Amino acid sequence: MKGYREMTKEELIKECEALTKRYEDFKALNLTLDMTRGKPAPLQLDLSNDIYDTLKDGFKTSKNEDTRNYGIAPGIDEIREIFADILGTDKENIFTGNSSSLNQMFDTIMRSMVFGEVDSPKPWAQVEGRKWLCPAPGYDRHFRVTETLGFELIPVPMNEDGPDMDVVEELVKDENVKGIWCVPCYSNPDGVVYSEEVCNRLAKMETKAPDFRIFWDNAYVVHHLTEDRSLWGSLPDMLSLCESYGNANRVYEFASTSKITFAGAGISCFAANKDNMNWAKKYLNTQAICTNKVNQLAHVRFLPNKEAVLEHMMKHAAILRPKFEACHSVLNEELGFDNLWHWTDPKGGYFVSFYAYPGTATKIVSMCKEAGVALTPAGASFPYGKDPSDSNIRLAPSFPVVEDIEKAVRILSICAKITAVEKMLEELA
Amino acid sequence: MKGYREMTKEELIKECEALTKRYEDFKALNLTLDMTRGKPAPLQLDLSNDIYDTLKDGFKTSKNEDTRNYGIAPGIDEIREIFADILGTDKENIFTGNSSSLNQMFDTIMRSMVFGEVDSPKPWAQVEGRKWLCPAPGYDRHFRVTETLGFELIPVPMNEDGPDMDVVEELVKDENVKGIWCVPCYSNPDGVVYSEEVCNRLAKMETKAPDFRIFWDNAYVVHHLTEDRSLWGSLPDMLSLCESYGNANRVYEFASTSKITFAGAGISCFAANKDNMNWAKKYLNTQAICTNKVNQLAHVRFLPNKEAVLEHMMKHAAILRPKFEACHSVLNEELGFDNLWHWTDPKGGYFVSFYAYPGTATKIVSMCKEAGVALTPAGASFPYGKDPSDSNIRLAPSFPVVEDIEKAVRILSICAKITAVEKMLEELA
Repeated sequence: MKGYREMTKEELIKECEALTKRYEDFKALNLTLDMTRGKPAPLQLDLSNDIYDTLKDGFKTSKNEDTRNYGIAPGIDEIREIFADILGTDKENIFTGNSSSLNQMFDTIMRSMVFGEVDSPKPWAQVEGRKWLCPAPGYDRHFRVTETLGFELIPVPMNEDGPDMDVVEELVKDENVKGIWCVPCYSNPDGVVYSEEVCNRLAKMETKAPDFRIFWDNAYVVHHLTEDRSLWGSLPDMLSLCESYGNANRVYEFASTSKITFAGAGISCFAANKDNMNWAKKYLNTQAICTNKVNQLAHVRFLPNKEAVLEHMMKHAAILRPKFEACHSVLNEELGFDNLWHWTDPKGGYFVSFYAYPGTATKIVSMCKEAGVALTPAGASFPYGKDPSDSNIRLAPSFPVVEDIEKAVRILSICAKITAVEKMLEELA
Repeated sequence: MKGYREMTKEELIKECEALTKRYEDFKALNLTLDMTRGKPAPLQLDLSNDIYDTLKDGFKTSKNEDTRNYGIAPGIDEIREIFADILGTDKENIFTGNSSSLNQMFDTIMRSMVFGEVDSPKPWAQVEGRKWLCPAPGYDRHFRVTETLGFELIPVPMNEDGPDMDVVEELVKDENVKGIWCVPCYSNPDGVVYSEEVCNRLAKMETKAPDFRIFWDNAYVVHHLTEDRSLWGSLPDMLSLCESYGNANRVYEFASTSKITFAGAGISCFAANKDNMNWAKKYLNTQAICTNKVNQLAHVRFLPNKEAVLEHMMKHAAILRPKFEACHSVLNEELGFDNLWHWTDPKGGYFVSFYAYPGTATKIVSMCKEAGVALTPAGASFPYGKDPSDSNIRLAPSFPVVEDIEKAVRILSICAKITAVEKMLEELA
């Protein structure tokens, strides 16, 4: 098949009619499909259904601590050890919390707002014109946190190996730039794994703000999609790396079990160096006596070490792979004939990032909605929801079944083609 | 036996020698007893050991929602209904969270610090000289929250029916006074139940600050110590009461299951009127996607309604009563001969509040420590840890076994007598 750029006006009109017919046929089916959020599928959740059975062996830790009672604010040692092992750091650097790492990130910046960081000239709430770097496309909920907290969101282009460091190094010369969002492994939504060079430059760069912070959201650190370990994303221990460059306080790292066991009943953690940890603990120990330790115990009994976690993640991968494959197969089949668009083929994480013909993403999403396919709003992966190219659409294939993914991605593809053809016709007119 | 005030100097010296002998004998036993914190005893925790067995019936709510996955930020309806029923309010006014209500209170004030309340002239962090009312004696962790957040702590005397409202009504004429801590049912540590009059005056009073807030920590709302329902503390629904006086936004109410099921794996909630709730949700929905819903489901299956909770609490009471009785019996036996001291006989909650001869509490606690009895530091129940009378000592009899309570309270009583006698001798000198 010819590419659209090679088609005549008449051919484009004919193509548009054929596509519109297909689109209307799909609409007539009254579908309800949802590709919006990176939610685990029921089959994935089923993998952990036995987790609470482990409590049959009682509620004591290996050190004979009663998880049912108050105390042990940073979390039981066993769970801190597993998180430390996964993140490549020391147990002492880990503080565990309830539920989501998003909660931990929000709370961490809230503390900075009110109390400042250990090396802050003043609390961040008092910094007029405070700014935050947002590698984009990125995670909409990250951006919402810093937007809500009054930061100006500064977009940074994403390259194939992480944020554009030339841009970052320039931007951090502004003392009002207080931090940067990073999803270093299988980034949301592009699936990028940061290169060693990017990690090094982030750790090493000179920042004007003495209290600049990297929020290293390692949300997908063990969320590989392939069994081939040589293809797994891997990263340096960012805490040590920052320390080695004399910037020991620069990074907070975050992770959680949300997409390992239960998204609705997870355990989160943050990792920090000694100074940041002591600073945080001053306030964490005022905020709460402890988090849910029984849940921690159930987790460590169910997945007692890093290797057990990795094996468990391969069961997730086995469920997820056919979904990503379905997504790719329909995209190839429908859109492979032209290079007006492109999409990612991540080795881990939860998303396929689709780049439509520039200027069409918003229209595609609204056409899909009319046909019963819910997609993340176009631009959602950009600061303020504004994709300057109106091109990126984040596809989340984890939750729906393969058959639904095929239908949804086919409708998306048809809409991508219709809108592209319409654009071309406009340009010809 | 004669009261100390009626004794001659010689009699007092003799008494002191006898008491010192008893004290030294106890010291020789090298005891390690802990009466510091209101922790449930293992036997109490055992009452809920089967809670997670209820998950054998699957992870779906009655509305077929999957608690294992993301979503339902305010908590599942079933748990909100139970909390609403217990607090005498509507389900829509309830937002549930993880772990402790302390966490909810801290977060609520953090939001006010950064964003202000819905009716605030400005965020509280920008209010120089902000103040908070602290009925005292009260809960040390409450005081620590507002102290950490830069509020001046203003003590308010506690009467037998709640805070001294004449004092409160005067103090709230200061626009920098932004709120008040209240534990309205079985207050920590005095076991006071607020009277209807106190509740009404709190709801009705005119406050200079338009964004004045009552933090109504209903920590012990179902924590009765007696089976006789006519003796149970009961309170008006503070949300309605405030609304009825035209102060609908005045109150946040808090509660948790920490001392109902597991202190280390509880569910907390806050209750708020529509305006406060909508305001809070703006930020709560940025902070987290949801809290631990599987734990919520286990809780509602284990204790499906208010009556089930009340029955469960009677099992706690059966375990706690002998401990409170042991405490009282030793106090009566050792100290009943004189009225230099007094103590509370609460109908619920977790504490016996002991009032030593003024000026002796610090010494008593340090003598007890030397004899292996850990007590809450004297003054801990007062703002900044300063009891102006140096008299109050909070006793927490829930955790130790009866035999240990008897020993600990006997040692406390001996120390109370020694220090009192010493004071009298000083006064005679």
